[in-house]
Amino acid sequence: MPSLRQGLPRGFRWAAVKAGIKASGRTDVAISVAEKPASAAVLFTKNQVCAAPVTVGRRFMSETGGHVKAVVVNAGNANCATGAPGIAATEKTCAAAAEIFGCKANEVFPSSTGIIGVPLPVDKLVNALPHAAKRLSNNNAAAEDFATAIMTTDTKMKVSQAIVEASETSVRIFGCCKGAGMIGPQLGPPHATMLVYLFTDLAADPPTLRELLGPAVEASFNSISVDGDTSTNDTVLMLASGASGVEWKTAPRSFQDDFNEALLSVCKELAHAIVDDGEGVTHVVTLDVTGTQNDADAKTIAKSIAHSPLCKTAWSSADPNWGRIICAAGYAGVSFDPNDVTVSIGGIRVFDHGVRAAGYDEAAVHEKMQQREYTIAVNLGKGPGHSRFLTCDLTVEYVHINADYST
Amino acid sequence: MPSLRQGLPRGFRWAAVKAGIKASGRTDVAISVAEKPASAAVLFTKNQVCAAPVTVGRRFMSETGGHVKAVVVNAGNANCATGAPGIAATEKTCAAAAEIFGCKANEVFPSSTGIIGVPLPVDKLVNALPHAAKRLSNNNAAAEDFATAIMTTDTKMKVSQAIVEASETSVRIFGCCKGAGMIGPQLGPPHATMLVYLFTDLAADPPTLRELLGPAVEASFNSISVDGDTSTNDTVLMLASGASGVEWKTAPRSFQDDFNEALLSVCKELAHAIVDDGEGVTHVVTLDVTGTQNDADAKTIAKSIAHSPLCKTAWSSADPNWGRIICAAGYAGVSFDPNDVTVSIGGIRVFDHGVRAAGYDEAAVHEKMQQREYTIAVNLGKGPGHSRFLTCDLTVEYVHINADYST
Repeated sequence: MPSLRQGLPRGFRWAAVKAGIKASGRTDVAISVAEKPASAAVLFTKNQVCAAPVTVGRRFMSETGGHVKAVVVNAGNANCATGAPGIAATEKTCAAAAEIFGCKANEVFPSSTGIIGVPLPVDKLVNALPHAAKRLSNNNAAAEDFATAIMTTDTKMKVSQAIVEASETSVRIFGCCKGAGMIGPQLGPPHATMLVYLFTDLAADPPTLRELLGPAVEASFNSISVDGDTSTNDTVLMLASGASGVEWKTAPRSFQDDFNEALLSVCKELAHAIVDDGEGVTHVVTLDVTGTQNDADAKTIAKSIAHSPLCKTAWSSADPNWGRIICAAGYAGVSFDPNDVTVSIGGIRVFDHGVRAAGYDEAAVHEKMQQREYTIAVNLGKGPGHSRFLTCDLTVEYVHINADYST
Repeated sequence: MPSLRQGLPRGFRWAAVKAGIKASGRTDVAISVAEKPASAAVLFTKNQVCAAPVTVGRRFMSETGGHVKAVVVNAGNANCATGAPGIAATEKTCAAAAEIFGCKANEVFPSSTGIIGVPLPVDKLVNALPHAAKRLSNNNAAAEDFATAIMTTDTKMKVSQAIVEASETSVRIFGCCKGAGMIGPQLGPPHATMLVYLFTDLAADPPTLRELLGPAVEASFNSISVDGDTSTNDTVLMLASGASGVEWKTAPRSFQDDFNEALLSVCKELAHAIVDDGEGVTHVVTLDVTGTQNDADAKTIAKSIAHSPLCKTAWSSADPNWGRIICAAGYAGVSFDPNDVTVSIGGIRVFDHGVRAAGYDEAAVHEKMQQREYTIAVNLGKGPGHSRFLTCDLTVEYVHINADYST
């Protein structure tokens, strides 16, 4: 993951401090503050069991119509399955932040990530806020501090940025995220252990931001999985400060296209970083499913393959066991005829219209699969539907990490 | 798994031989022959990609209306994704068996299990049939030979039997099965690598047998998973020879109830044996989900927990990470309120109406979870729906087995 190089979006400051919530003693509270309340769009987890900050954040976004002055994230405790005391802890945090930053409590956006079911040490979090406030800065080091403090089992900081040229100025995007396990995001209009924060200095109202965010998330964070476990805390938050002076509504179409492309690119880079840093991952696999009747069917098949323990373990040893791939496609619940199906691994045809491909060379495919990244293309031969889905192998290391992660 | 002790159903003989299909050189062709064509009911995999013997067996059962003279099973090759040559190989096998056993080709029921996508060495199989025919016998050793030859990654032979008393005689049931990985059966009226064979000397027509088999399979084989991968070859075949002289239709209700109970018990014992012998399994977990609006919702939640890599890895280290359990319930797609939910592990309440149970004692739960078998009870607090689902942990050994299983 590259460190930050280009200019950051104007109108935001970032900081992080140690509050003693992570057992490791690393930085665990990250804050971001906008000069004036920013336009905001958010997508939350669709999990029926959602964390207190998701419940509270959803309510606050509804109350303000999508305006956020400050973001307060803690890592090390998910504040999930913590009942009414959990809700009260989040509200107390937001009230404390509001006092410091001169805004209403509902203009503070809360996030938590970490262990489920353990009461949040809210006093540690609240006591850390004044220290964090003193460190706020609009520079790369501060933004990277934010991106680092939100990490849990992540091994790498995950950041991405882009600059979109406008007529006499430029609009900037900075994104960061965390997530390595419990990754199978299903985000929907108003919906955690994948946390994503996108900052831009574009001027756009909240409804516009929501329109921009949806498609970018669908093609990125909603098209990846590590283990298929959809977290209780998944959140994607996008804030627009307007400080670039570029108004979305009056900007030329060419700028709008460029911005959408840049936003998608940032989201895809971050989504890739999550899979690449997935727990125990040794291979990143792109599933390119085509030829279904519609895109939804293609995604259903891609997810069935992506979540198959038999496919994932075979990938871990670069084993060209394509039979497991077509088996997982076959139980996805989508109707197709195996005689129409072709499968290629790393560009080499392995399955061709119902039978093993002529001249199938297992050694050649095995060699391709020893690369860290490759594509498995599955064509169902039926229609125009397609899905590109990013996933990974299942390794002994994944089991070790998750068998030993303590409650 | 106990060896066979009681009397076997009359009217059947069994045998097994080595045909050289398994790389290990063990017995790999199992046959069973009925004195006269038996009534048959079958459930096949619902996987869209199904093996040649499933395609052919489905057609044969339709042609005969459910009559089977002989069963021919090979292990070591699934004859799946083998196209038209695969179909031809199965048809050739059945034709050869028909000639030996004096029946029509469509009265021979074919099954295959093993590697997918590799052409079936049909000549080895056909050449083995005359040798197998010479060994046919109605005794425990022959039945156990049958049960052993169908094994692939199984470490144990899986057999079960029951005797149901009738007025002046008794009706016998013998069941055997194989399966350790790619286990997530979804069997439906006419639907592989779970193979189950049930033999009884009850007299019943095929429609009656189908009615008896359906509910027994739903509560047993359709309520288990090892890895959740629904195989291309799953088959449950039940044959009734009628040799006991006890007619289902004229038997008293008390006998019918006893028979249903015995059949369910045999199916459950075999289903339990599959999970217990699951690849790399160190813990067998019963998920007892209650309080949903209907049984289907309960099963959906049970399967979501059973297939969660995070739950399964936690179980492997006896880690009472109940947060992962409620998380997996939450993304199952069934609506519920976490504040209504209670979760117990091994009889100890861990989650109580939205929060960690009062007096939660992690060490006590950890101790319960060190047992090889225990129950996790999840009550959604909403309705009368329930599901008992049998599953297992995900261990480093599972990954080793499936990363190394060669194509």
